[in-house]
Amino acid sequence: MKPRKYRQPQGKYLEHRQHVRVRFQEVDSLRIVWHGHYLSYFEDARVSFGQKYQLDYLDIRHAGYIAPIVHISCDFIAPASYGDELEITIRLLYRDSPKLDYFYEVRRLPDRELLATGRTIQILTDHKGNLMLTRPSFLRNFYSRHENRWMDNHE
Amino acid sequence: MKPRKYRQPQGKYLEHRQHVRVRFQEVDSLRIVWHGHYLSYFEDARVSFGQKYQLDYLDIRHAGYIAPIVHISCDFIAPASYGDELEITIRLLYRDSPKLDYFYEVRRLPDRELLATGRTIQILTDHKGNLMLTRPSFLRNFYSRHENRWMDNHE
Amino acid sequence: MKPRKYRQPQGKYLEHRQHVRVRFQEVDSLRIVWHGHYLSYFEDARVSFGQKYQLDYLDIRHAGYIAPIVHISCDFIAPASYGDELEITIRLLYRDSPKLDYFYEVRRLPDRELLATGRTIQILTDHKGNLMLTRPSFLRNFYSRHENRWMDNHE
Amino acid sequence: MKPRKYRQPQGKYLEHRQHVRVRFQEVDSLRIVWHGHYLSYFEDARVSFGQKYQLDYLDIRHAGYIAPIVHISCDFIAPASYGDELEITIRLLYRDSPKLDYFYEVRRLPDRELLATGRTIQILTDHKGNLMLTRPSFLRNFYSRHENRWMDNHE
Repeated sequence: MKPRKYRQPQGKYLEHRQHVRVRFQEVDSLRIVWHGHYLSYFEDARVSFGQKYQLDYLDIRHAGYIAPIVHISCDFIAPASYGDELEITIRLLYRDSPKLDYFYEVRRLPDRELLATGRTIQILTDHKGNLMLTRPSFLRNFYSRHENRWMDNHE
Repeated sequence: MKPRKYRQPQGKYLEHRQHVRVRFQEVDSLRIVWHGHYLSYFEDARVSFGQKYQLDYLDIRHAGYIAPIVHISCDFIAPASYGDELEITIRLLYRDSPKLDYFYEVRRLPDRELLATGRTIQILTDHKGNLMLTRPSFLRNFYSRHENRWMDNHE
Repeated sequence: MKPRKYRQPQGKYLEHRQHVRVRFQEVDSLRIVWHGHYLSYFEDARVSFGQKYQLDYLDIRHAGYIAPIVHISCDFIAPASYGDELEITIRLLYRDSPKLDYFYEVRRLPDRELLATGRTIQILTDHKGNLMLTRPSFLRNFYSRHENRWMDNHE
Repeated sequence: MKPRKYRQPQGKYLEHRQHVRVRFQEVDSLRIVWHGHYLSYFEDARVSFGQKYQLDYLDIRHAGYIAPIVHISCDFIAPASYGDELEITIRLLYRDSPKLDYFYEVRRLPDRELLATGRTIQILTDHKGNLMLTRPSFLRNFYSRHENRWMDNHE
């Protein structure tokens, strides 16, 4: 197995940060957050990102599309506990294809220790389930609307 | 607070039993099932009951109705742990009104120790949200279809 | 079935309010919050209450006790949807017995429409599981520490 | 993005199959299973595998170890709906290192259409959190105990 040194995704991206507090019912019998709940934290961050940049699930639906998730992954570095306040950094990578490709970092406040990193990929279909092969106009508009806010990452 | 001696509901009822195994992720940091998950066990039992007696969520929807839950309650007697096999007994009480009134018992196998009891009440509305004040035909048919299977409880 | 007119609990109480935003994954196929998730909202409010008044799960554990839930109930008046911002009002009722008796109201912001009301009751045991019959010192201290903050409800 | 053609993992493995029925509360507002719940299905399959082969969370704990998850991934091919009966195939890959490396396939019955594939990786630590660098005796015993049951996959 390759070492899982964390490298930030390369290229242009839009970024947002969201705070989440670990719920009692998210902690398992080992007194750490059960791994599956990180996907809830990612979902929360994605919802918050979508509301900030008008790329919410409802925005996409009103444009006539659905964005099903086709891939998730998460690597765990250190556990989170009950009451921890977490900072989720979510970055949407710039893609020429009609995909929504998000990267995530989960850090514990106040010291910002890195606990986990993750990724989700969504494709776009219309309401009949037809796969989009090029970026529909709502997505092109989204890209140009935020043209000056994309950041660039060179390591 | 009144003592919560458990008394079985009185009157005619239809009964079903469903087995559930406690999932790892349902157990909290005290190593017992988090109380909210009992509502999942009730839901599982209700789904299984519905499939047995043709009173599933989909049966109700196809008849043109929705059955939103308006009341839940649960009393906890002893905790359940990871790996426990639970037997959920669900009983639909005979009601003249257009309500679905279910009672639940949660017992641990193999000794059938009583762990919890509960109740859920659903009302019926049409798809526009109008409350049904009398039993719609699908519900009358359900009652008569199982006429000979209702049991009666006299303590 | 009795009418479920909502009456605020009577007597002295401590109050706290907590905001919760409905998560995408809490909404079911009817596009409303699945009823079981209200117990998560109650738990969130109880945790926040405990942190404000030093009656958290960890405070109780450090004092040598556990506070298992023995009763939950919830009545649903109107549904919540994805993205709704909810205000949870939690009130701890003044009790002479060693019980934690909480009442809840769930309201949708900004208009504060009442969506649901609920109650949870916890008993106290020591770490060996022995039931407390009188209020242990940590609970008496909690009561006296907040003596001037108890509110009184006369309808 | 690389094409995500599904290729079965290569090498020796132990296999188990587990059936799961989709719960009402696992389906989101798009009427498909919310992606995060697949990690529950994987957990269910892993628990069932562990009970069959004596590699359960409790077996590991009694041996003096913990097996935290350090990686999860899942690729989604087709959605699952309420009431679907799913077959989860779980395979533990033979590894010389002290890791538990599981692969998963989720298929819908009765036609066994492939809906998703996934992977989880666990490391081993002792109860003080020290990482195991070689396989502890309980794991070597597990390997030799099932020596004749390992299957081999050559594509």
